[in-house]
Amino acid sequence: MKVSQRLDSIAMSGIRKMFDLASPSSINLGLGEPDLLPPKKAIDGMTLAAENGLNKYGPTAGIPDLRAAVAEKYSVYHPLTANNVMITPSGSSALLEVCMSVLDPGDNVLIPSPGFVIYGPHAKLAGGTFTEYRLTPETFQPDIDDIQSKITKNTEAIFVNNPSNPTGSVLEEDTYKAILDVAEDKDLLIVSDEVYDSFIYEGKHLSYLSHLDRSIVVGGFSKMMAVTGWRLGFLMANEDMMEHLIKMQYHVCASPNMPAMYGALAAMSDIDNYLEDARTIFKRRRDLIVERINEIDGMHITKPKGAFYAFPSYDLDIPSADLAMELAKNGLICTPGSAFGSFGEGHLRFSYAADETKISKGMDILAKTYTELKKKA
Amino acid sequence: MKVSQRLDSIAMSGIRKMFDLASPSSINLGLGEPDLLPPKKAIDGMTLAAENGLNKYGPTAGIPDLRAAVAEKYSVYHPLTANNVMITPSGSSALLEVCMSVLDPGDNVLIPSPGFVIYGPHAKLAGGTFTEYRLTPETFQPDIDDIQSKITKNTEAIFVNNPSNPTGSVLEEDTYKAILDVAEDKDLLIVSDEVYDSFIYEGKHLSYLSHLDRSIVVGGFSKMMAVTGWRLGFLMANEDMMEHLIKMQYHVCASPNMPAMYGALAAMSDIDNYLEDARTIFKRRRDLIVERINEIDGMHITKPKGAFYAFPSYDLDIPSADLAMELAKNGLICTPGSAFGSFGEGHLRFSYAADETKISKGMDILAKTYTELKKKA
Repeated sequence: MKVSQRLDSIAMSGIRKMFDLASPSSINLGLGEPDLLPPKKAIDGMTLAAENGLNKYGPTAGIPDLRAAVAEKYSVYHPLTANNVMITPSGSSALLEVCMSVLDPGDNVLIPSPGFVIYGPHAKLAGGTFTEYRLTPETFQPDIDDIQSKITKNTEAIFVNNPSNPTGSVLEEDTYKAILDVAEDKDLLIVSDEVYDSFIYEGKHLSYLSHLDRSIVVGGFSKMMAVTGWRLGFLMANEDMMEHLIKMQYHVCASPNMPAMYGALAAMSDIDNYLEDARTIFKRRRDLIVERINEIDGMHITKPKGAFYAFPSYDLDIPSADLAMELAKNGLICTPGSAFGSFGEGHLRFSYAADETKISKGMDILAKTYTELKKKA
Repeated sequence: MKVSQRLDSIAMSGIRKMFDLASPSSINLGLGEPDLLPPKKAIDGMTLAAENGLNKYGPTAGIPDLRAAVAEKYSVYHPLTANNVMITPSGSSALLEVCMSVLDPGDNVLIPSPGFVIYGPHAKLAGGTFTEYRLTPETFQPDIDDIQSKITKNTEAIFVNNPSNPTGSVLEEDTYKAILDVAEDKDLLIVSDEVYDSFIYEGKHLSYLSHLDRSIVVGGFSKMMAVTGWRLGFLMANEDMMEHLIKMQYHVCASPNMPAMYGALAAMSDIDNYLEDARTIFKRRRDLIVERINEIDGMHITKPKGAFYAFPSYDLDIPSADLAMELAKNGLICTPGSAFGSFGEGHLRFSYAADETKISKGMDILAKTYTELKKKA
C-alpha cells in the first residue's frame, strides 16, 4: 500500500523516541508534562458530567460556557468573546487545523529553531514547506535579522512559541514588537503558540491576542490544568477566521470530548489560585536545576523565565543525541537539542516538571556522566 | 487573512445545518447518535481512571490493553493482534488520518453516493479529489458497473461504508466480493468504514478486515457504546501500514483521551450483551418507522438491515432540502437526502435512534405534512 509523500517526508518526534528508551527505574526529565495533580474541580466536573449523561455529541466549536470562560480569562490580554474561542482536541490538533486552514501547496512558514517539534511537520502535512529561523544565543529570542533574511514571496506565516519549548524563554517587548512590524510590513500571519502562558516566573506575557487581525493564538488546558492526557486545547482568532476554523474542525473531529470540556469548565473559576501555587513550585525547581547545571564544568544555562524546561548548552564536541544516549544508559532521560531543529544542536532539554528529589538525582547523573566524558575527551 | 483553497472548496455538513434549526420542542430525528445510556461500566471505568490519576499523556496508538481488547473482539472476522489496532480521537479523525496518510495531490478516491458527508471533504483536505459512485435503488448496494466506469489512472482508493449511513443497507456477499475483485484488479486500497458493524438486524457483517493487505478498516466506540461525545474510534490495518498511521496520529493529536480509553476498556468485556439488547430495541424501532413511512401515499422504503437510519424515497417533485425545511417548520427535524451527495436527492434521512413515542410523533408530522403537500401539488 502506498504512503503519501507528505507523511513519508516527516520523521517521528525525537521526544517520543527517547521516551521509549526509559526503563522504569530511570529519572525521566524527557517529557513536557506537569507532574502536579489536576485541580480537584476538573476531575469532579468531568466525572459528574459523564455520570449525568453528558456523553453525546456537542457543538463543533465546543460548549458555549467553556468558550466564554476561556474568553473571559484571556480578556486580560485583549477583550474577547466566546465567538473568538474554539475548543480543540489538544493544542497539537489546533496547530494542525491552523496549517490546514491557511496553507496552500507551495506556501512557506517560518518556524523557531530550536523550537517545538510539530510546526515543521504540520506545514508539510498541509502541503507547505517550512524554514527555520534562529533564536539568539543565551536569551533565545527570535533573531529578527534572520527572520527578515528568510522571507520570500512564498512566506505565509511566522510561528512564534511564547513561552518557548524547549528553551523556556519569554518574548521580550522589543522582539515582540519587531515580529509584529515584520508581519505587518510583509503581510504575514502570526501563528502564536502560547500554551505555556500560565508559566512565567519573571516579567510578563505578551500575547498576540491583541492583534487578531493578523494572528491566530493557540492555548491549551493540558499544561494549565496538568491534564495532558485529556487532549484539550483551544484556538483564539477573529470571528471571520473562526468561521473557517470551525468548518475545518468539523472535518477533523466533529466536536471535542464532552466530559473533558465540562471538567475544564468546572476548574476555570479557581484556576488563577491553582496556577499561582503551581508557579511557586515550578520556580523553586527551576532555580534548583539551573544552579545544578551551572555547577557542572562545561555546561551552561541562562535562567529561563517561563515554561518548565531547562535547555543548557555544553562544550563537548559530541552530538546531543549521543550525549542523551549516554545519559539514558546511566538512568537519566532527557531530550537531545537536535530534536528541536538544526539550531538546537549542542544543547539538551530537561523538563523540570518533576519533584526536587528527582531533579537532584537526575542532576547527579548528569554531573557524573558529563564530568567523566570530559575526562575522556 | 487567507484561507486555504482546500478548506474553501468544501462546504459545512448539511447534517449540522439542520441541527441548528431544531427548536427545543422539535422531534429530532436528524442526528445519528444512539439515545441509549452508555454501558455503566464505561462511565465507571472513565471516572475511576480520572480519579486515579490516569490523566497524563498515553501512548500515541492508544493504551495497549484497549488495542488488545479491540483486536480480540474483531478477531471474529479475522485474527488480529493489538499491533493491528490504533485507538483514534473519533472515527472521523481516523478517516482523515487515512486520507492524509495515503493520498497525494491529484489522487482520486471513489466514494458512495448517497454516502456519509465526510469522505469527499477528507479527500480534498488531503489534496486529492473524489468521484461519487452510485448505490443501486431500493437495496442501496454499491453499483459495480458504475464503480468500474469511474476508475481512472488517478484512482487510489474505494471508500465503502458497511452498514451504510444514510441508507442503512448492509453489504451483500456478491457485492462485497465484486468490490474486492475490482480493487485487486486495479490495485486500489479499500477504505472500509464499519462504524455501524454492531447494528445489523438481518444477515451478517462482511468485514474487509480479512483483506488488510489492501484495506484499512475504521471502527468506533461512539455508536457501539452510545458515547458519541467521547470522540473515540479506532483504525485497523496491517502492521506495515500501522507504523505510518501512528506517525500520522502523533502529528494529529499526540495521543487519544486517556480517561475515555479506560472507560471503553472497562466496557469491552460485557459489550456483546449490551449490543444484543441495543439491537433488540433498534430492530423494533426500525420496524415501526418502516411501517409508518410505507403507509404514507407517495413515500417508500425497503426495510434496511443495519445502522439506525431510514432513507425513504418520495414521489413529489421538490428538492429534499425544501421538504426537510417544511418538516422542520412543522416540528420534525430530519436530514435532506441531498446532504449525502448527488445520488441522495429525492430522499430524506431519519435516524431511528430515538424512542418509539418520538418516532410515532415524528411520523405523524411526516404523514400530515407530506399528505398536505401532495394535495397542493
